[in-house]
Amino acid sequence: MTDRLRIDGLQYGRWSRAIFEEMRAARLDAVHVTAAYWENARELMANIGAWHRRFEAHADLIMPVRTAADIDHAKASGRTGIILGLQNCSPIEDAVDLISVFKQLDVHIMQISYNNQSLMSCGYLENDDAGLSRFGREAIREMNRVGMVVDTSHTAERSTLEAIEYSARPTVVSHANPQSARATLRNKSERVMRAVAESNGLMGFSCYPFHLPEGSDTPLEQFTEMVARAVDVMGVEHLAIGTDLCQDQPVEVLTWMRNGNWARVMDYGEGSADQPDWPRPLSWLGGARDFPNIEKGLEARGFDPTEVDALIGGNWRRFLGEALKPKGVGENE
Amino acid sequence: MTDRLRIDGLQYGRWSRAIFEEMRAARLDAVHVTAAYWENARELMANIGAWHRRFEAHADLIMPVRTAADIDHAKASGRTGIILGLQNCSPIEDAVDLISVFKQLDVHIMQISYNNQSLMSCGYLENDDAGLSRFGREAIREMNRVGMVVDTSHTAERSTLEAIEYSARPTVVSHANPQSARATLRNKSERVMRAVAESNGLMGFSCYPFHLPEGSDTPLEQFTEMVARAVDVMGVEHLAIGTDLCQDQPVEVLTWMRNGNWARVMDYGEGSADQPDWPRPLSWLGGARDFPNIEKGLEARGFDPTEVDALIGGNWRRFLGEALKPKGVGENE
Repeated sequence: MTDRLRIDGLQYGRWSRAIFEEMRAARLDAVHVTAAYWENARELMANIGAWHRRFEAHADLIMPVRTAADIDHAKASGRTGIILGLQNCSPIEDAVDLISVFKQLDVHIMQISYNNQSLMSCGYLENDDAGLSRFGREAIREMNRVGMVVDTSHTAERSTLEAIEYSARPTVVSHANPQSARATLRNKSERVMRAVAESNGLMGFSCYPFHLPEGSDTPLEQFTEMVARAVDVMGVEHLAIGTDLCQDQPVEVLTWMRNGNWARVMDYGEGSADQPDWPRPLSWLGGARDFPNIEKGLEARGFDPTEVDALIGGNWRRFLGEALKPKGVGENE
Repeated sequence: MTDRLRIDGLQYGRWSRAIFEEMRAARLDAVHVTAAYWENARELMANIGAWHRRFEAHADLIMPVRTAADIDHAKASGRTGIILGLQNCSPIEDAVDLISVFKQLDVHIMQISYNNQSLMSCGYLENDDAGLSRFGREAIREMNRVGMVVDTSHTAERSTLEAIEYSARPTVVSHANPQSARATLRNKSERVMRAVAESNGLMGFSCYPFHLPEGSDTPLEQFTEMVARAVDVMGVEHLAIGTDLCQDQPVEVLTWMRNGNWARVMDYGEGSADQPDWPRPLSWLGGARDFPNIEKGLEARGFDPTEVDALIGGNWRRFLGEALKPKGVGENE
């Protein structure tokens, strides 16, 4: 493998030394990991505490990312930098002040909704999307100020477009695919893709089977074809990887991801009563160890080394180099 | 005033620009401020969020202290460094992992109890003191590891002695006086004072009238006489200042400090039904602006400049220079 920088823009494994060893085997220099789905502030603190334990116990394999430069430090020391992020804004509860508090705890990326309506915006599984709420605008302003990235991966279309428009700084879709590759509301329309690119943001390609044209049977060639088409729409500098790997997670965790504390009637999310379990993994991405297959696939598809550099980590690194820095107040005015 | 370093080891004001301006007028280079008495984890997060707002709004006067070197940065930039601390272990609830989380949020000092029995130890107002609890030992080990200072200002005697003995790193009494100056359990016995000094810890002299020989009428000369006698017991290098100023706080806050969420029958703490209010302030310490009077009093009492340097800030600075650094695991073994 070349010496390029490798970054995975989304994983939520059942964290273990074995997974961190796979990250190292794949020479992943950084991974954006999900620290909360439905958790409140106190529960996220516990999850962060658990990450402190992992950083201590596996200091030879992983390290926390405080600034983007830590990704380079991780690479230089042969470790994987862990970027903490949230797939929902539930941990800030109704308190704009908690954004800077969690930023200080190295939470650097936050979705403004998960699947449902949140206090900030609307998730993609709702029937109606009223766009950004009053709190949503205030919270985005504060995220812009402290350098916490706005992520709209699970957010509904109108809310996503309003967030891109309202945010003074570029936003990301850390893990989703073009709707042209698979027509699900969880994927992104060309309109959203263009808006992300025009605002200098980033979209990470998902390898979650439900986001791919042939589900679990999607061949690598079809994935890289999807990449090539998205490059035509957004430009190679605005695309990256966010595998959405949920390695070693039992079905109970999937059920919780879908139902949180809110559902009394079972919600199957992207699954169904017939298929309530995790989708069968892709043959070419069974775990973090297989991340190099994406790289090989892009090379085989004919992307030149500079493009592969960009897609496989360079774009995330460049984006985070700006996005994680705190900014002065009032940039939204 | 000379260019010496000035540190106040305890204040809990009704924070305002006016108080921060008094800190500057007194050329205080750092102040240890109380961020929680009875708060739980979530409530402390809100208080820390409020401090983030203050650091932003009054960046010309104050700055957060992350490492002891920030005290020097504060001095060099003509500001007061704010050291966050807790007068109770309630914010870590029952979770040892929250110690490193709050350390990351720049909480650097924590009392192992306030007035009552806590999950860690026993406060000075209880009838019986069973010493350190199982959780108390575990939490002190973790405080030692991350570099969070053990403070026993309000802790009962047996718990205090056990904490000094158990802690692998020096501990402090951030704000209390010798019992020889005023015989209250809130002050410290000669046995505790010697144990603090022998473990290379620190005691900060309190200016709260209830801790002083003549209460609100205690003259400055009697205060400095108390200092001189304590120096004979502990050595000048183990003594400092922790004024316990509660500037501009209404009586409701005092009532809450005493009663928290726990009392249904009014608890008067060091006061009484006849005297439920704040004690009248000392004539020579009406607020942070008067901090230089302590310095002048020590000089008038005949302490030489090196001793005044040590007492007025140098000892805190030296102590924190070691104490705030994280240490390797297992130093208690």
